Amino acid sequence: MHHNTHIQSVELPKSYRLLNHGPTVLVSAKSGDTENVMAASWACALEFSPAKVTVVLDKSTRTRQLVEESGYFALQVPCLAQIDMTKELGTLSLFNEPNKLEQCGTKLFYQDGLDVPLVEGCIAWLVCKLIPEPHNQQEHDLFIGAVVGAWADNRVFRDGHWYFDDADPQLKSLHYIAGGTFYTIGDEVKTDK
Amino acid sequence: MHHNTHIQSVELPKSYRLLNHGPTVLVSAKSGDTENVMAASWACALEFSPAKVTVVLDKSTRTRQLVEESGYFALQVPCLAQIDMTKELGTLSLFNEPNKLEQCGTKLFYQDGLDVPLVEGCIAWLVCKLIPEPHNQQEHDLFIGAVVGAWADNRVFRDGHWYFDDADPQLKSLHYIAGGTFYTIGDEVKTDK
Repeated sequence: MHHNTHIQSVELPKSYRLLNHGPTVLVSAKSGDTENVMAASWACALEFSPAKVTVVLDKSTRTRQLVEESGYFALQVPCLAQIDMTKELGTLSLFNEPNKLEQCGTKLFYQDGLDVPLVEGCIAWLVCKLIPEPHNQQEHDLFIGAVVGAWADNRVFRDGHWYFDDADPQLKSLHYIAGGTFYTIGDEVKTDK
Repeated sequence: MHHNTHIQSVELPKSYRLLNHGPTVLVSAKSGDTENVMAASWACALEFSPAKVTVVLDKSTRTRQLVEESGYFALQVPCLAQIDMTKELGTLSLFNEPNKLEQCGTKLFYQDGLDVPLVEGCIAWLVCKLIPEPHNQQEHDLFIGAVVGAWADNRVFRDGHWYFDDADPQLKSLHYIAGGTFYTIGDEVKTDK
């Protein structure tokens, strides 16, 4: 169990909003005793209800193997406070660095009843059950998941909406470009059109 | 031909960077004499080289029919100056509003040799050839395209990188949440990890 009192459950038909603004994500998975986390930019909502997501997982990654073995993965949204960890999780491989998570300073927790590791300090989490699609996985490295649980940090997401403008800037989502360069999410803007 | 002197070609293996930070996109297509544009949040890079993208196109949209008929579509990145137009392109349907593009104030242009309409005033454009995948299209509303041409506005993207910090804030990309609420892209942040 996790002791961050800011974690609040998000109703599944609104979980797409956690990804809709295009943040960089961390992908986590576990098989047997092996837990791993990688960074990914290519994750996207796929359906509102039942909630589904896509994520691209390269064949060179250990996390992909854990997803294929266990049939589960989580997507989570890291924040500016985690920029160094996010970059390192996307650079180091568990294949070469058996202590990858320790080196990256990544701490995991679990939600009751779900054997999928989640990363502490993120601002949103989506636990997903793999919908096996061998053609997409082999040909496109594309994995589809049904969202079975979703949570967010209520300092920045509550009642189905992000509130980045009012919160600590360190809680802003990250949007990766290339190299070591990210953008943070910016300001809320509205239209009545 | 188009007379915006800021449009510069982007090499295809770097075209993923136009989408990597997760902006809301406009999807355009043409079949016969019918041109249309819709807004979409669920677009994503799929492969570096050969460059590929995914986009989710609901069965209720006219644009989807045009993509299926022509085998081509374009993704383009609208900017803050276009927030009202972007919202309206995502709300009105050509099925009900035969003058949709005029109502939305959307002006189109074409690049030489490509019969795919592009939206003036955007900050990046990717012309894509549909890779037909009947299962993905029917079951998931998921369309995969090979990028055959890419361009960006060199006031905000040049030499393979975004430069939002130095540019007119009206040229910032939009990141849709729900209702009439978007976020703009924020500040560049770097890590040397």
